[in-house]
Order: sequence, then structure tokens, then C-alpha cells
Amino acid sequence: MSDLPGRPRSAVRTTPSDQAAVRRGNLGRVLRLLRDAGPRSRARIAADTGLNKATVSSLVAELADRGLVAPGDVDRGGAVGRPGQTVHLDGTGVCGIGVELNVDYLAVLVLDLRGEVRFEHRVPLDVPALGAERTLDEVARLVRVAVEGTSDATPVGITVAVPGLVRSADGVVTDAPNLGWRGVPVLAGLNARLRPECPVRVENDANLAAIAEWATGPEAGTPDLVYLTGEVGVGGGLVVDGRLLRGTSGFSGEVGHTPLGDPALACGCGRRGCWETVVGLGALLRAAADPDDPVRDTGRDLEARLAELAARADAGDRRTLDALAAVGTGLGTGAAVLINLVNPRVVLLGGYFAVLGRFLLPTMTAELRARVFAADLAGARVVLSTLGFTAAARGGAHVALEPVLDDPTLVATPDLPQHPTPIRTETPA
Amino acid sequence: MSDLPGRPRSAVRTTPSDQAAVRRGNLGRVLRLLRDAGPRSRARIAADTGLNKATVSSLVAELADRGLVAPGDVDRGGAVGRPGQTVHLDGTGVCGIGVELNVDYLAVLVLDLRGEVRFEHRVPLDVPALGAERTLDEVARLVRVAVEGTSDATPVGITVAVPGLVRSADGVVTDAPNLGWRGVPVLAGLNARLRPECPVRVENDANLAAIAEWATGPEAGTPDLVYLTGEVGVGGGLVVDGRLLRGTSGFSGEVGHTPLGDPALACGCGRRGCWETVVGLGALLRAAADPDDPVRDTGRDLEARLAELAARADAGDRRTLDALAAVGTGLGTGAAVLINLVNPRVVLLGGYFAVLGRFLLPTMTAELRARVFAADLAGARVVLSTLGFTAAARGGAHVALEPVLDDPTLVATPDLPQHPTPIRTETPA
Repeated sequence: MSDLPGRPRSAVRTTPSDQAAVRRGNLGRVLRLLRDAGPRSRARIAADTGLNKATVSSLVAELADRGLVAPGDVDRGGAVGRPGQTVHLDGTGVCGIGVELNVDYLAVLVLDLRGEVRFEHRVPLDVPALGAERTLDEVARLVRVAVEGTSDATPVGITVAVPGLVRSADGVVTDAPNLGWRGVPVLAGLNARLRPECPVRVENDANLAAIAEWATGPEAGTPDLVYLTGEVGVGGGLVVDGRLLRGTSGFSGEVGHTPLGDPALACGCGRRGCWETVVGLGALLRAAADPDDPVRDTGRDLEARLAELAARADAGDRRTLDALAAVGTGLGTGAAVLINLVNPRVVLLGGYFAVLGRFLLPTMTAELRARVFAADLAGARVVLSTLGFTAAARGGAHVALEPVLDDPTLVATPDLPQHPTPIRTETPA
Repeated sequence: MSDLPGRPRSAVRTTPSDQAAVRRGNLGRVLRLLRDAGPRSRARIAADTGLNKATVSSLVAELADRGLVAPGDVDRGGAVGRPGQTVHLDGTGVCGIGVELNVDYLAVLVLDLRGEVRFEHRVPLDVPALGAERTLDEVARLVRVAVEGTSDATPVGITVAVPGLVRSADGVVTDAPNLGWRGVPVLAGLNARLRPECPVRVENDANLAAIAEWATGPEAGTPDLVYLTGEVGVGGGLVVDGRLLRGTSGFSGEVGHTPLGDPALACGCGRRGCWETVVGLGALLRAAADPDDPVRDTGRDLEARLAELAARADAGDRRTLDALAAVGTGLGTGAAVLINLVNPRVVLLGGYFAVLGRFLLPTMTAELRARVFAADLAGARVVLSTLGFTAAARGGAHVALEPVLDDPTLVATPDLPQHPTPIRTETPA
């Protein structure tokens, strides 16, 4: 992806000169460099950013005052300048909170600025049965538990992942068929319950999982990445040139309801032939087992049921193997469309696709080879996610931390001005 | 924290090459600002870029020496600073050349830095019959004609649009089924023929058309835009957040061979069920007319044949109307997938889709309403392109100009150093 030529006049917004804004941006550049490229001397930071060394020293001093960086060892290896003391990211005092709200569980994950997991918790919950209001009560409760569990770090943001369409503008979940939610004001509901001093965001779960995959794990940093997750619904998240593709309203990545399924099959969304009817968890379970089979008992833990299916497949059970092969072929059909359209380097499979991936990959790969227009899958690899079912919560925590990397002055310090508002979240009751 | 011991600020050095790179970047920022936001005073430029005013004056002087900007009227309207003489983009002496190589024609279009069309020409050519080598001879000839036709402007780049997969790394057309080309080294072939001193690029035609739509015309500046073009093949180009989505190898936007067609129909690519078999020009013509009908005579000009089809539809010819309705429905199915995945603000229809759009839109819109997951087409509008069949060439010309906006020192001047190489293309024989 590249910048486009010819930005039309109407699209251009210029901002007035603002030295403070320039400084905030430079603080962020230094902080990102230390996070992404590791500890280094001030001389090296100056060389890597193109900022002059006096400016770098002043920026590093301010970041240290805000508790975001700390001095480290003497750097003797660098080619640039004389040996100097290195600086490294600290950021243990700052955290981002990610919550995933799914059909049958809530999960929370807290990351500090170094990307370390500081708290993680998952609770089963029958969200469709509970309804929106009581579910949001539970989300708020879980956020409070997480804040208490990381009381030595100040939250700078909270992101809630939802399996459905989330309107960027106001955080309303316009349609989440598998929750039975339409037009639920999740952002407003959480702000009313939590009264947080840090920002709350609501995002599509697969989009956040894609961010998590991009930010961490074996495929971290892959600039062009497609994430496909199989749960009750099927979600997609697209990272393009290192950035999440959100689309014009936040409605991107809705692969589950593309017409790539069997036109005869009805979908929970009211349409026919959606891809979800072929590759969703329900499709797999219906094909693999009779209605009274324990693997279809939604009251049981999903991971246990998937383990049982895997055991049957390993034992050579024909029906299970056929069901998995059919899902694999369906996955290939849909993934081929994504590869043809966005030409990713990696297609990551999450959710149940990852758990049962070794049974899905043979037929999926065969279908991809038949279906992708460019040779060798246009350079794409198919990889099983290792982040497990907390990928979306993890991505949410990353997104929550992101503003600090754009503007480190969001983090309070006794002696330095805060911008634009205090960020300490009141300790929950 | 403090400055490092023993290193007073006066001892801090930046290398000349760093300083030159920073200056080139700042020259580009000023030039882009003047192109995108219009004429303005030096004080306003300083305010808009955050650069200090002395630097801006020096940058403007250099841009003027390179013939890229010129003085204009006195600016009395600005809120920032005292009234001063405005500066505006000149750039009439610099041009980018875009060439489109399609199944049955070549087109060339030359833009200067202001975005004005300086030369435009289109010639019919049976590319599949002619073969790659002789076609590249013709492309080179057309480039020479364009250079002669704009002898008062120096070309700074040449971009060739091809209807197929173009590998970014080396400009090889790996697969263009409708040309019958596989593994054709177009970039190397043109460099050998033209020996240009300015860079040559090869890009997918629909990607370049998408850039043209983003850069000019009624939908210019739409950050999230999908372009779909119907010709012999069907192409797609995606603009996401103001940038072209090229993908990891340059193979993005291959909508034509996604499995959204009738699984019973064979495609020119060797697969079955490709979308192209339902919405490509061949599909329309086969449905609308018998083999000996003049509208199916590929020896006749395409626009004349499309005009005849439109006349028949206007006259209420049932077969023509049914064929167009079927293409419209098929267009809706595929466009719904794109809307679900990338959530664009605008879906632009180009090629024959634009020419016959008024007959396609009713069924296309009905299918979109049934198929797009989010309400109200996720905010998308379907729009007919007004750029005509030269959209790809126009996008190519824009791309060719882009490097000058990153580094205006690419443009030679008698008194100022050139970087990195002279750009004057030798006058062709």
C-alpha cells in the first residue's frame, strides 16, 4: 500500500502550527522506537529518528519523568557515536484493558506498555440468555476485577470486543446475530456503569484479534495479514500495510455473511447461503454429531467439546473426519476470496479453526491451490493462531495502549502538565 | 536525566546526507501542500506545515528555481501572519506518463504536476493476436508519441497498466489470461526499448484506475473506495484510508476469479464458477446476442457496440434487458462481498459497467440490499465512473508523478544539484 497521489483539495485538513503537538508526536516516536526496536543509547535514538541529539535528550528526560522509560546498560556495540547509557521502555505503571464479550463467555486481559500480560481472566456466560443490560453489568464487574488485579498500573484505556457490527462513530452494536443484539448502545452503557476517566472503545472482535496477531506472537509485524476466527459465528479481521482495515464505518471484515455457502442453507442472520452456514461452529457440530451428542451440548465448555472432536478424529471416526474435511474445503473457498482481494502474506486461523486446524488444513489447502488466482497462493501462508480464545481481549488491550504511544503526555506525572485530561481511573467499588 | 557527560551540544553533528534528506522531505511537504490545498502565503505555509518561516522562504525559493512553484496574488484573507504574496504550484514543465495496455487497445495519457491532461491518445490493437514482444514495441512507440506531444514538459515517470497479475518486485506480468500472457517481463522489455532516464513501473490496471478515481473526478478524496471495472475481464482496485491496497506482492483486487459465478461455467483462467463468467463483457454479450450479431464482433469498436446494446435496451428489447438484469444481479453479489469485507464509502463502476450502468443498477442495488450484512449497504453508495476507458492510464500518470512530490530535487535545474540522477528522457527517435 502506498500514499496516493493527488489528494484533492476538499480532503485536505491542515492544522495550525502547534509546537506542543510536535513535541507530543516526537515523544511518541521515541517511545515507539524503544518499544519496537529495543533499548538503545540517546545517540542511537537520534540516528534512528532523525531528531537532533539535544532534542532526544530532552524527550528522554520527559519520558523518564512520566515513568515510561528508564536508564539501562552502557551501549558499547553501536556504530553511531561514542558508547552511552542505553534507555529502555519501562511502562510497568501503565496498562490497557481488553475485554471480550462473546456468545458464551467474557474474557479480560490486561497488558502493560511493555506488552506483558498483567492480568487475565475468563468466565463462562450465556450472553444471549442474559440479555444486553445484565451482560454489560457483568462486563463492568469484570473490568473492576481487572483494575483491582493490576492496582500498581494505571489504566489508560479500555476496549471491549463484540462479535458483531460495531458502529465506530458511537460504539453502538448495530447487529450481532449470535448474541441476538440489534442497536445496543454498548459504549454508552459501559460509560454509564464505569464512569471511567480513561477512554472506552467498542470494536469488532475479529478486528481486535487481527491486531493482537499483528502485535504479538510468531507472525507479529506481518504487514499484510488476514485473521479468520471460527466460533458460533465466523469473523474476519484485515491488517493492511501494518494497519487495521476498519472501513468507513467500522464494519469491515464481515466474512461470515458473504454468499460463499450452500444457497439452500438458512443463516441466523435471516439470509441464505452465508459462509457461516458452512464453516461456523454450528455447521461443524451438526455435520459431526447427532443433536443429543455431548459435543453439541452448549452447556459444556467449548474447549472440552473441541478436544473430544479432535480425539474422535484422531481415532479415525469417519463422520467426524468428513465433517472436518467439509469445513476445511469451505474455509479454503472463503480464504481464497480474501487472498484474491487483499493478497496477504499470512492467513491466520483462530478460534475453533486453530484448535482443529490440523484436520482442516489438508482440504483447505487443496481448495486454496485450486481457487487462488495467483500462483503459490500469491505468496500467502496459512498459519494456526497460538493466541487462543483471548486473542480479541489481547488486541483490545493493545488498542487501549495505543494513544499513549501517539501522545505520551496522556500519562500523568506530578510535575508535568497532563494532556488533555487526567487518566487515573477511580478505584472501583 | 541530563545530556551525556562530555558531549556539549555544540559537538552534536548531523551528517550532510541526513540534512539533505530532511530538506528534500520538507520541499516535498511544501509542494504537496500547494497542490492539495491551493495557493497560499509563505506565512500560511509555515503555519500549515509547522516549519519555521525562514525555512519556508528558503524552500519556496528552491522550488521556484526548479520551476515547480510560482508567485501569485497577495493573500489578504488568512488569519495567520501579515498579508503576503501567495505561492502556487506551477509544475507545467514536469509530467507523468500513463499507458494502458488492454485486450483490444492501447491508451496513453500525460498529466502535468498540476493534474492537467497534456496529451491523450488511444489506438485499437489486438493484443492477444499480436503477442507480447510486438505489443511492447507498440507501447514504446506510443510513449514516444506522447513524449513528442508534450515536448515542453519533462517526463519524470512512466507507468504501464496491464489487465492481469503484476509482480511488484520486478514488473513481470505473471498471469493475464485475457491477453494470453504468462510470465511476461514487461518492465524489463520496456526498459530495453525505451532506455528511459525516468523510472518505469508496471501495475495492475484496476489498481491504477482506483487511484485515478481517488485523485480526480466527483468522488475524489473518498478515503475508502472500491473500483470495479468490466471489460473482457473484470478487475478491482481497493483504496483504504486514502491509500491503494496493493497487498504483499501487488496481487490485490483480483475479483474476477473469485468463486461467485455459476459453478457450471468455465472461465478463461481454467477454473469454473469465476465471477467473470457472470459479469464479464463476454457473459453479457453471450446472453444478449447470438454469435453472428454485430455487437459480438470484436473487430468493431467497443464503445459503438455498447451504444448499440444501450439503444436496444432503451427500445425495450427483452433479451438485452434480461441480460443486463442478470449482470446487475451478479454485480450485486460480488460488490456485496467487497462491501462486507472492506466497508467502502463508494463503490465505483468503471469500464462497460459505467457505460451501461443505468440498466445494471436496479438489479444490482436489489441484490446489494439483500446481501450486505450491515444496514443501508454499510453506508456505501454505488456510483458510475465518469473517467471513461482512460481511467487506468490516468492513474498511471498520477503514480508516475508521485516521486517528485516526495523529493522535488528529482527535477533538474541548471543551478541546483540534481538528486539522484538526471531525469530528462532522451527525445525518442
